[in-house]
Amino acid sequence: MKKENNGSVRIIPLGGLEQIGMNITAIQYDDSIIVVDCGLAFPEEEMLGIDLVIPDVTFLKENIEKVKGFVITHGHEDHIGAIPYILKDINAPVYATKLTMGLIESKLKEHNMLRTVKRKVVKYGQSINLGDFRVEFIRTNHSIADAAALAIFSPAGTLIHTGDFKVDYTPVYGEPIDLQRLGELGKKGVLALMCDSTNALRQGFTMSERTVGTTFDKIFNDNKNNRLIIATFASNVDRVQQIINKAVAYGRKVCVEGRSMVNVIDVAESLDYLKIPEGTLIDTEEMKNYAPEQIVLITTGSQGESMAALSRMAASLHRKVSILPGDCVVFSSTPIPGNEKSVAKVINELGMKGAKVIFQDTHVSGHACQEEIKLIYSLVKPKYAIPVHGEYRHLSAQRDIVLSLGYDKENVFIAKSGDVLELSEESGAITGHVQTGAILVDGLGVGDVGNIVLRDRQNLAENGIIIVVLTLEKYSGQLIAGPDIVTRGFVYVREAEALLDEAKAIVWDSVQTCMDKNITDWGKIKNIIKDDLSEYLWKQLKRNPVILPIIMEAQL
Amino acid sequence: MKKENNGSVRIIPLGGLEQIGMNITAIQYDDSIIVVDCGLAFPEEEMLGIDLVIPDVTFLKENIEKVKGFVITHGHEDHIGAIPYILKDINAPVYATKLTMGLIESKLKEHNMLRTVKRKVVKYGQSINLGDFRVEFIRTNHSIADAAALAIFSPAGTLIHTGDFKVDYTPVYGEPIDLQRLGELGKKGVLALMCDSTNALRQGFTMSERTVGTTFDKIFNDNKNNRLIIATFASNVDRVQQIINKAVAYGRKVCVEGRSMVNVIDVAESLDYLKIPEGTLIDTEEMKNYAPEQIVLITTGSQGESMAALSRMAASLHRKVSILPGDCVVFSSTPIPGNEKSVAKVINELGMKGAKVIFQDTHVSGHACQEEIKLIYSLVKPKYAIPVHGEYRHLSAQRDIVLSLGYDKENVFIAKSGDVLELSEESGAITGHVQTGAILVDGLGVGDVGNIVLRDRQNLAENGIIIVVLTLEKYSGQLIAGPDIVTRGFVYVREAEALLDEAKAIVWDSVQTCMDKNITDWGKIKNIIKDDLSEYLWKQLKRNPVILPIIMEAQL
Repeated sequence: MKKENNGSVRIIPLGGLEQIGMNITAIQYDDSIIVVDCGLAFPEEEMLGIDLVIPDVTFLKENIEKVKGFVITHGHEDHIGAIPYILKDINAPVYATKLTMGLIESKLKEHNMLRTVKRKVVKYGQSINLGDFRVEFIRTNHSIADAAALAIFSPAGTLIHTGDFKVDYTPVYGEPIDLQRLGELGKKGVLALMCDSTNALRQGFTMSERTVGTTFDKIFNDNKNNRLIIATFASNVDRVQQIINKAVAYGRKVCVEGRSMVNVIDVAESLDYLKIPEGTLIDTEEMKNYAPEQIVLITTGSQGESMAALSRMAASLHRKVSILPGDCVVFSSTPIPGNEKSVAKVINELGMKGAKVIFQDTHVSGHACQEEIKLIYSLVKPKYAIPVHGEYRHLSAQRDIVLSLGYDKENVFIAKSGDVLELSEESGAITGHVQTGAILVDGLGVGDVGNIVLRDRQNLAENGIIIVVLTLEKYSGQLIAGPDIVTRGFVYVREAEALLDEAKAIVWDSVQTCMDKNITDWGKIKNIIKDDLSEYLWKQLKRNPVILPIIMEAQL
Repeated sequence: MKKENNGSVRIIPLGGLEQIGMNITAIQYDDSIIVVDCGLAFPEEEMLGIDLVIPDVTFLKENIEKVKGFVITHGHEDHIGAIPYILKDINAPVYATKLTMGLIESKLKEHNMLRTVKRKVVKYGQSINLGDFRVEFIRTNHSIADAAALAIFSPAGTLIHTGDFKVDYTPVYGEPIDLQRLGELGKKGVLALMCDSTNALRQGFTMSERTVGTTFDKIFNDNKNNRLIIATFASNVDRVQQIINKAVAYGRKVCVEGRSMVNVIDVAESLDYLKIPEGTLIDTEEMKNYAPEQIVLITTGSQGESMAALSRMAASLHRKVSILPGDCVVFSSTPIPGNEKSVAKVINELGMKGAKVIFQDTHVSGHACQEEIKLIYSLVKPKYAIPVHGEYRHLSAQRDIVLSLGYDKENVFIAKSGDVLELSEESGAITGHVQTGAILVDGLGVGDVGNIVLRDRQNLAENGIIIVVLTLEKYSGQLIAGPDIVTRGFVYVREAEALLDEAKAIVWDSVQTCMDKNITDWGKIKNIIKDDLSEYLWKQLKRNPVILPIIMEAQL
């Protein structure tokens, strides 16, 4: 297994810059490929009707015999979410720490894949051999327990991938990040560091998760006579633990609402990552047996997601929980860019129902800010710096940080999805490109909705559709039924009777013209109908609905 | 005209809390109604295909003979945008300051209404008589010149409406807000104050517009060798003036890109609100005759709007301007909630093209923060406080400020759209409610797209449409053409041939069943087709496309 320190290692992001959220990186040495993380993305606004987006892994499929395994840094959707989809085609073993594996397993179970996928739980400090690679899991801190950085030993040198991380000297669960090991590896020599850029635009240090506890103390003290409703990310097990600890300390019962919250709490508690004293948790139905001030309700919906529990409570659409005047609602989160408006909507609705809303000092990030990034580079001192995780502006901000530490421009790489970054002690360069992309998942369909379908949906969404149907006799070409007009999403029909009558008359004329001129080519007839009708509608309304002429053939 | 101080005055917001942006308030005393502002809103995300939203003014139409005039506080869309639509039905005169009127006139011109709408330009300090009311325009500061607060004198007492405002002791154009007059009126006694709440959640004081000039100086000095591209709000004439001043001072030529920017600059310059030294402005085509460092390009697109000039430059879709490596792009604006993601997208694209992006200290708000709100209340000392402009959380934050000044809860009113707030020296209460609402404008159609149409568009957008057509003979009921299936926005047809063939077979079966059972009711036939097909598609794909069966009748 042990080879000399030679050759080059290739780093190939299969998601990332063009597909934010889909964190998946292939690392290749000779005939061995390992895959770091396997995440999914949530659809962009313009991806109408799409549920999820997963990475195009054509590169892995084409090299399927080389793929030795998937090594996963932590249990967030953007790092594990695509596993059930990708492993249907590429059944390599999955390696992860205990909580991460628990969350992966609950996904595999949903997809009936528990039996087919090989898995191994890895401990911090432990190494696994995967072809020419050896991978060591190193303890880090993040907004979910059991996060790991990976030291990837290859004959060409050592790579370190931080995963998502922060430096927390006083974490709520477990130990601080293993800075010593990072220093030790750095001292021995590291070829390249792939470091989290999410907070690279933010100065200073991310505060410890424990500081949120101090704020919670104040909130519990200030609201001794009110029910507390606290919304946070389902996956933030440490946050949930802190809320439960405070509930116990202040003698309150805890309810949990929101499917994903219930699921994560189940997994985390069963694996001992969450400690809930007996008698603390109650069912939401039991809430009526307690005074409001005896309750803490932990809920999903901190991002204003319209279907999440808190949003439904705020809109009076929740089956079990109604917001009461005097309720104190805590957003233990920051809006993710793009969600600000929905969060504000929920805050407004809560306020109108007489609830007090708190969102100051109730959250800390799970990602390293500028000073932490500098710390990691100073411990690891890699030859090459490869900013990962984030949009271009974040990666570019990490590049600026790295340059400020004295690195040469030539040794810092911002790789796009599919770029093949080839590194050795002697040189580093982008030497090729492999196919990557976003595959859209709509319901059970994977990849059957593409750009043409999305463009159609966009047109339908903005203007609606007008369908013109007519039936022609097969041999004579005579019109024997229609033309009829049916619309959807165009105008409120009862308001627009005159307009639609006129439209129908225009279609009649178009068809008549075709008959008179003996035009029998269906394509031509359809185009004439389309042109005449769309000209009329644009003149009348300045609108461009989708016009869909359908000609049927009757054989009498 | 002069009556005794008696009776009560009614304040009726016709937009506002439920229709953020549509600022329009009816104020009634006896048989006189005046209308403060007449704004439009931009569509919410779920209003697919809608261009604009205007207020439902049924109340004004029903009292048309009482409406004495529209008094307008300033020239922003959310205060003047609905004028052409509303004044088609209610042709009362419009009163505004000079720049505001200039912007109104450019709207009226577009709608061919310049001749029909009576208008009068009012100066600061000047009063106009409108039925039982007298309205005085008072100088304020805002992010557009010529903004006014209104003192509305009625027999029941004096009302003050701040409009959008801030306190700027060193404005770029004109004079600081007339605090003296507000104090003088307050001393004489003010019944109610309607005060801008937009920044009521922000502590402290809003900085002077002039501070942005200091940042610009630094940017011009730091980028002596680069082209400068500065994006800001088209309507922020003072900001544009500052950019032009700096361009002149640093010896650069100025180009302007973006239709709305060109339009506002034209209006402002022709009315002398913008001073551009001769030879400063050049056409974008002339840019090639100058070195990059001799140019400042002022552009729209500071909110990442996809069709605006800067966004098109960033995406390489602009006809005349390409981003060059080394360009320095300044966002002289803050993202409006909801626009964060689009702004980030543009920043990423600019970065990838090698441009430097600056957005720190390059903008100040045009709205009063908490200390300014306290100042205005301390000068005016109204009996009743009526927070206006903003979402519920903003109005509620102003209420908290007012309560902290010692006001009684009973004298602070958060009125919803349509609430009739009746005020007199003796008492204040919400005593009724009038019809209000949002009317959707799509192209030239006003109000012909409603909830049903929007729901259809939503369904079409998420799942696409499947159309099933068949032709029956009129008398026999025999199938003579079809059933055919046509889809749009459902699946990529070439990928899903087998599925669509199967779907067609299912429709054939459904139709055959109807024939066999002698079902001739078209409604029933359509429902059977719908049910069978949607069951199949849900089972196969977990999707719910719109299924639209169309039956045609042929008479042979």
